Amino acid sequence: MNFSIVKRTLGWLLLFEGIFFLVPLLTAVIYWEEEFFSFLITILLCGGLGGLCLIKKPKNSNIYAKEGFVIVALSWIVLSLFGALPFFFSGAISSYTNALFETVSGFTTTGASILSGNQIESMAKSLLIWRSFTHWVGGMGVLVLIMAFLPLSGGRNMHIMKAESPGPSVGKLVPKVRQTALILYTIYFGLTVAEFILLLCGGMSAFDALNTAFATAGTGGFGIKGDSIASYNNYLQIVITVFMLLFSLNFNSYYLIGKGRLKEAFNAEIRVFLVIVVSAISLITLNLCLADYGYSVGGAIKHASFAVSSIISTTGFATEDFALWPAFSQTILVALIFIGACAGSTGGGMKVSRHMILVKGGMHEVGRLIHPKQVKKITIDKRVVEHEVVRSVNAYLVAFVVVFVLSFLLISIDGKDFTTSFTSVATTLNNVGPGLGGVGPSGNFAIYSDFSKFVFMFDMLAGRLEIFPMLVLFAPSTWRR
Amino acid sequence: MNFSIVKRTLGWLLLFEGIFFLVPLLTAVIYWEEEFFSFLITILLCGGLGGLCLIKKPKNSNIYAKEGFVIVALSWIVLSLFGALPFFFSGAISSYTNALFETVSGFTTTGASILSGNQIESMAKSLLIWRSFTHWVGGMGVLVLIMAFLPLSGGRNMHIMKAESPGPSVGKLVPKVRQTALILYTIYFGLTVAEFILLLCGGMSAFDALNTAFATAGTGGFGIKGDSIASYNNYLQIVITVFMLLFSLNFNSYYLIGKGRLKEAFNAEIRVFLVIVVSAISLITLNLCLADYGYSVGGAIKHASFAVSSIISTTGFATEDFALWPAFSQTILVALIFIGACAGSTGGGMKVSRHMILVKGGMHEVGRLIHPKQVKKITIDKRVVEHEVVRSVNAYLVAFVVVFVLSFLLISIDGKDFTTSFTSVATTLNNVGPGLGGVGPSGNFAIYSDFSKFVFMFDMLAGRLEIFPMLVLFAPSTWRR
Repeated sequence: MNFSIVKRTLGWLLLFEGIFFLVPLLTAVIYWEEEFFSFLITILLCGGLGGLCLIKKPKNSNIYAKEGFVIVALSWIVLSLFGALPFFFSGAISSYTNALFETVSGFTTTGASILSGNQIESMAKSLLIWRSFTHWVGGMGVLVLIMAFLPLSGGRNMHIMKAESPGPSVGKLVPKVRQTALILYTIYFGLTVAEFILLLCGGMSAFDALNTAFATAGTGGFGIKGDSIASYNNYLQIVITVFMLLFSLNFNSYYLIGKGRLKEAFNAEIRVFLVIVVSAISLITLNLCLADYGYSVGGAIKHASFAVSSIISTTGFATEDFALWPAFSQTILVALIFIGACAGSTGGGMKVSRHMILVKGGMHEVGRLIHPKQVKKITIDKRVVEHEVVRSVNAYLVAFVVVFVLSFLLISIDGKDFTTSFTSVATTLNNVGPGLGGVGPSGNFAIYSDFSKFVFMFDMLAGRLEIFPMLVLFAPSTWRR
Repeated sequence: MNFSIVKRTLGWLLLFEGIFFLVPLLTAVIYWEEEFFSFLITILLCGGLGGLCLIKKPKNSNIYAKEGFVIVALSWIVLSLFGALPFFFSGAISSYTNALFETVSGFTTTGASILSGNQIESMAKSLLIWRSFTHWVGGMGVLVLIMAFLPLSGGRNMHIMKAESPGPSVGKLVPKVRQTALILYTIYFGLTVAEFILLLCGGMSAFDALNTAFATAGTGGFGIKGDSIASYNNYLQIVITVFMLLFSLNFNSYYLIGKGRLKEAFNAEIRVFLVIVVSAISLITLNLCLADYGYSVGGAIKHASFAVSSIISTTGFATEDFALWPAFSQTILVALIFIGACAGSTGGGMKVSRHMILVKGGMHEVGRLIHPKQVKKITIDKRVVEHEVVRSVNAYLVAFVVVFVLSFLLISIDGKDFTTSFTSVATTLNNVGPGLGGVGPSGNFAIYSDFSKFVFMFDMLAGRLEIFPMLVLFAPSTWRR
C-alpha cells in the first residue's frame, strides 16, 4: 500500500471540500445567518488538516488498482465525516451520528433523511443549500472533479476513475482521464444550469430552484419542503420529471450527441432503460385508474411518471405518498429500486447495463443447455462483452446480495416490520431514498437506532461506490504486507 | 426433439403413478372409505393412457441434454395433473385448480396448502396418505425411481438424472446411473423406515407416523393436523427435528459413511450447513429469550431448533407460529428459506453448495482487484470447481432472481401486503411451504386468486427442478426445428 499517495489525495480532497463550503458560507452571508460561523470553523479545519497532509511530497506517486479502491473508499468517508460538521456545530442536528447519516445520504445521492418535514422547513437556508449541494458533489464523483483540475498521481488516474464511476465498465471519452473528467463535468454543469433556469421560469424562487436543481442533478432527492415536490405546480413537477430522467442517462451519450453521433448515443442500455420506464408508467397508471384511487387519467399519468422517474433514477423525490398506492404499483416501484439508472449517469442502483449483462448471461446458459455445441458470445450493441466484465458483474450481484442480507439481518434487530426493514436496506443500498412502510415518502430514518444508522451509512457508501471499494477497504489482504 | 422417447417416458411415468396410487387405494380399503372409487378410476386412467403411450416402440432411443430437460419438466407436470384427480373426483377439493395446487405442492415437496386446518382434519384417510405420499415420491425424484427399475433410454439416463437431481453438480456414486439410483432409493427407504419406527416408539399411531415419515423424508411438510406438529409430544418433536436435518444432508454422504469413508462424508458443504444451523438456532434462541416471549430457555431452544431445521431443510412443519416471533428471528428464518438444504438431499432451496460457490467466486473477484496478478482457482474440499459449474451457478442465481421478481409482480396484482407477497414467492420457489403474514404457519394459500395459484405452481416446479428444465421447456428455441 502506497500510504503517502493516499495521504496526499486525502489532503487535496480536504482542500476541495473547504472550497465546496464556500457555497453555504456565501448563502449564510446573503441571508445573514449565524450558521456562517459553523461553516467558517469547518473550512479552517479542512484547510488546516488538508494543508498538513500536503506538506510532504510523496517520493512514489504510483497508484495501482488496490490504491485506487482504497483512495476512493477513504475519500468518501473523510468527505462525509467533515461534511457533517456544520450540521453538528450549528446545533441543527444535535447528534453527530444523525448529522453524519444525513451527510452520507447527501454525498451518496441517496436522499434518505433523519429529519421530519417540520425540521427541514425550519432549517437555516445555508444548511439546506449545503445539504442539497452534497448531492451535486456526490453525483458525478468528487475525485473525478479533483482530477479535472489536478494531476492526482503519475498518470495513473484511471484506477481512481474506474473505482468511482458507476457501471460495469468505464468508457473513456477521450484518451486522457483528465480531459474526460472535464468533459463530464461540463455536461453536468450545463444540464444543472438548464434545469435551474427552467425552474425559475416556472415561478420557483431562486433559492428553491438552486436546491432542487442540485438534488435532481445528483439524483439525490433531498427536498427542502416537508412534502418534497407535492406543493409545486404542474409545470415544475413535469420539468423535474424530465430532468430526473435526463440525469439517469449515460453522460457519454450527451457527448456523442454533441459530436453528432446520434446512433451511438442511443445505445442499447438507453433503449432498454426507456422501455422499462414507459412500461412501468403504463402499468402503474392502469393500476391506479382501475383500482379507483380517485385520480383523473391525466393525474394518474403525471404521478405515475413522477414516481417511476424518481425511483428508477434513484432520486427519491415524491409528489404523492406511493406507500399508499395499490400493492401492484408498489411492487413495480420496489423492482425499479433494484434496477437503477444507466451506467455513467449520476443515478445509483445496480444499473440497467448490469442487468442486461446478467440476463444475457443467463439466457446464454439456457441456450447452451438446449444446444450444447453452440458457441456464442454475449454481445451488447454488437460489441462482445468481455469475459472479465461478465465475471465481474456476476461477482457484483453476489456481493450485492451478501451485503443486502447481512444488512437486513443487522437492522432487523431494531424490530421494525418486514416491509419497512426490507425497503430500508433496498433504498439505501441502491441510493434511492424513500422506501415503503415506516420509511415511505412521509416517514424518515429517525425511527432507527444509531447502530442501524451506521449499517445504512455503510450501505449507502457501498451502493454509491458499487460495493467493491468498500469491500477492498475492509478486506484483510489489502492491508497485509 | 426426439418426441417418441418423450412419449415413451411419459407412458412409463403414468404406469408408475398408477402403482403409486395403490398406497391410498389400500388405505381406502383398510378404512372402508368411498374414496376407493376415485383412486380406482384414476388408476384405470393412468394405466390406459400409459399403456397407449407404450404401444409403439421408438426407433431412436437417444436422449440428449435438451430431451433430458423436457422429459423431466413434462413428467412432473403430467404427474401432478393426474395426481390431483382423486382430490377432485372425490369432491374433497371442489376446484381442480386447488387440487392441482395441492398436488404440485406435494410432489415438489413444498407443503404449501390451500386447505385450512379444519378441512385437513376432516379429510378421508386415503386422501391424506396420498397427499403425504406425494412428498415421498417427489423427494428423491420420480424419474430417478423409474430409472432404478427400468433402462429408460439407451444408456443415456445421465441427462435425466442431471436434470432431476438437486445441486450444482451430480456426483455419481457408482459408474452406472441405474445402480446409483437404486442405492439412493435404498438409503431413502431405510431412513424413512427408521423415522417411522422411532415415531411409533413415541406413541404416534401407525397412520400418523406413516404420514409424518413420508412428509419428513421428502422434506415436504404437509401435516395431517390443523396445528401441524404442535400437538405431538416433546419426544416426537425432537425425532422430527433430527430427521428433518438428516434428510437435508447429501445422500452420497450416507453411502460414504457406509463404506467407512468418514472424512469424505463430512464434506465442506455439510460442515457449512451445520455451522449455519447451529448459528441460526443460537441467535433465535437468544432473541426469543431476550425479547421475553414467555418461553423457558429449554422451550426456546426446542422451538428455535424445530423452526430452523424445518425451514433450512425446506420441510415447513411448525410447532409454533413463528410469524408472531420478533423481527430478527423472522429475518433469520427468511434468510434460511433462501439458503436451503445440501445438494443431493431431498431438501429444496438454492442449496448450501451453490451459495459456497457464489460466495467463493465473489471473494475471488475481490481478491483479484487487490492482487490483479494473482491466479487462483475456486476450490471446495481441495477440489477445483470447474469454470463451467461456476458459470452455471451464476446463471442459476440470475434465473432465480428473474423468476422471483416476475412472480412477485404477477401475484401482487392480488393486492396482498408486501410481507405476504414476498414470502409467498420465496416459500414456493424454495419449496419450503409456510411464509410470513397471510401465509404464515396459521394461514394458507386459499387467499390467492387462481391466476396467482398458477404462478405459484410454476414456481414450485421451477424450484424443485432447479429452474433450468422449466425454462428449457418454455424456451422457443427448444421447439424450433
